Amino acid sequence: MKQPSAFNRHSDEIETELKSLIMEQSLPLYRMMAYHMGWMDDQGEQVRMNVGERIHSTLCVLTCAALGGEISKAMPAAASLELVHNFSQIHNDIQEGTPERYHRPTVWWVWGPAQGINAGDGMHALARLSLLRQAENGIPAELALRAMATLDTACLHLCEGQYLDLTYQERVDISQAAYFQMVEGKTAALISCATELGALMASANEKSIKAMTLFGQKLGIAFQIRNDILDLWRPQNTDTPPAGVLLNKRKSLPIVYALQTASGAEKRALGDVYFKRVMEPEDIEKVIEVLDRLGAREFSQETADALCQEAIQVIGEAGPSSDGMDELSNVARFLVTRDL
Amino acid sequence: MKQPSAFNRHSDEIETELKSLIMEQSLPLYRMMAYHMGWMDDQGEQVRMNVGERIHSTLCVLTCAALGGEISKAMPAAASLELVHNFSQIHNDIQEGTPERYHRPTVWWVWGPAQGINAGDGMHALARLSLLRQAENGIPAELALRAMATLDTACLHLCEGQYLDLTYQERVDISQAAYFQMVEGKTAALISCATELGALMASANEKSIKAMTLFGQKLGIAFQIRNDILDLWRPQNTDTPPAGVLLNKRKSLPIVYALQTASGAEKRALGDVYFKRVMEPEDIEKVIEVLDRLGAREFSQETADALCQEAIQVIGEAGPSSDGMDELSNVARFLVTRDL
Repeated sequence: MKQPSAFNRHSDEIETELKSLIMEQSLPLYRMMAYHMGWMDDQGEQVRMNVGERIHSTLCVLTCAALGGEISKAMPAAASLELVHNFSQIHNDIQEGTPERYHRPTVWWVWGPAQGINAGDGMHALARLSLLRQAENGIPAELALRAMATLDTACLHLCEGQYLDLTYQERVDISQAAYFQMVEGKTAALISCATELGALMASANEKSIKAMTLFGQKLGIAFQIRNDILDLWRPQNTDTPPAGVLLNKRKSLPIVYALQTASGAEKRALGDVYFKRVMEPEDIEKVIEVLDRLGAREFSQETADALCQEAIQVIGEAGPSSDGMDELSNVARFLVTRDL
Repeated sequence: MKQPSAFNRHSDEIETELKSLIMEQSLPLYRMMAYHMGWMDDQGEQVRMNVGERIHSTLCVLTCAALGGEISKAMPAAASLELVHNFSQIHNDIQEGTPERYHRPTVWWVWGPAQGINAGDGMHALARLSLLRQAENGIPAELALRAMATLDTACLHLCEGQYLDLTYQERVDISQAAYFQMVEGKTAALISCATELGALMASANEKSIKAMTLFGQKLGIAFQIRNDILDLWRPQNTDTPPAGVLLNKRKSLPIVYALQTASGAEKRALGDVYFKRVMEPEDIEKVIEVLDRLGAREFSQETADALCQEAIQVIGEAGPSSDGMDELSNVARFLVTRDL
């Protein structure tokens, strides 16, 4: 599926909002942030790199528009979501020991883990300061406080999900229920926060807000499953190996499914790999072979598709404009079928 | 100087407020937080350990009271300050590689650095959720938003200070101005945030808020200098060696002063130690000998005392009650002269 036109329609405004928070600051602390955001190289020279699709801010802004809200009112919230997402990436890269992201060294790889933790913490604080700008945007103080609480609760769920993700890495017996609990925190919390904040900034009624939150939650899980698939089965023209997800033993849905349905020889083959203290790149091929034999990829994609379908149905309950309905549905379908 | 009676007067209420945020949560993520706060051991058993003096929350509550505010209104803010301070400790322990704090292993030492980062991030989010409770406390929404902005700005300054502290470790040429810039962020930002929030929660006027903020800022710097001194010259009955601050080459005021005033042989002696890639415990004695010869301890204590005096004078401009004036002055003097 081609990327829907709505997907990038507001990118420039979002980048401008984000840059206004980081690029005006002079301390080198912000240089690390600008590097992670793709606006600077490690020498402080301004560049423009593609480092991610700003999915959270896009969903926030499109949800706001679909409910008849003004895009500009959603901008501070959109930027704050993106900053939380990126702060979390900076910390995750340290937690997982990831040396590269989008074909260049991660922040901690360039500046060391201590400054990496610091850059993430700073971006975490900056995310709230971004959201606080909404008050200047004519958003009533009560609504602004509600939005703050929504964002902070999502941050906490993000940490809860990350906690589970890290503990699962040393375990083999992860059920699908446990997987979904982890993903609801790790990925869906911030995506549903994005659609919720979009609805809030459109001054939507409670029924619409609830529906849009649920839309984001279901889409968030489906989105993570698609990422799980892409982590394991890379398109042939990608030069990055499917390393990360397997090497750190993260439990993605295809793997959870395989560990559940494998029997006899297959279980032993997976167990051999998963009980090693450190996985080798050679082990990856072995695991993928078993996953293929068990239909783990098909199962996972079907699960993602079904969740995406449910998500799209829920949008209708929020009473969006007809264009808005189309755009959000297209973006949702794209996120769950796209290649890298 | 004996600990002033005001210092612990509200400890129980503060602990209750803090516990209500963390101990009600069931995920093991919160167990790490409870451990750091001194309420659990590493097996999840409830304990009560002394792990720090809740200085930030105490100053917030006493400032509020001194300006005629109700203590209960300041409680959510007091708890949020303590959570920010403790989240920052959890991350600092990872950044500095500190294995022990208050005679027991640090969070990252027990659960690993990845979960340590996570516990800190969660506590960071929880701090805001605590502050959001103020709205339930009858604080008007506009004031609540202003308090949020105050806390977030302090968090950002904290990260900026931490950034400088980390970069200074690899440098020898740190001026006193550079030291003060670092400490204003690393320590004084959160202490002045505490007194500012206390004044805000007392619904004080702008002049009082400004004066109390300045009081906190000056006291915060003086407090850090006293800690610098205690890090190097421990009272004889303390069983912890003055290790940390020197081993990680942190630039504390006695050291900055010594590097500035030393000449010839002394400078070489300090340089020999500071240009080593890793410092040995044996080097500490050598450094302290030079510091003593240069009067670095006396200089630092005099600087702290002078700042403390200025801080106390500023309180008067806030128009506190006579009891409040006495209590805040006594607490300030205590913080700048106490032993460990």
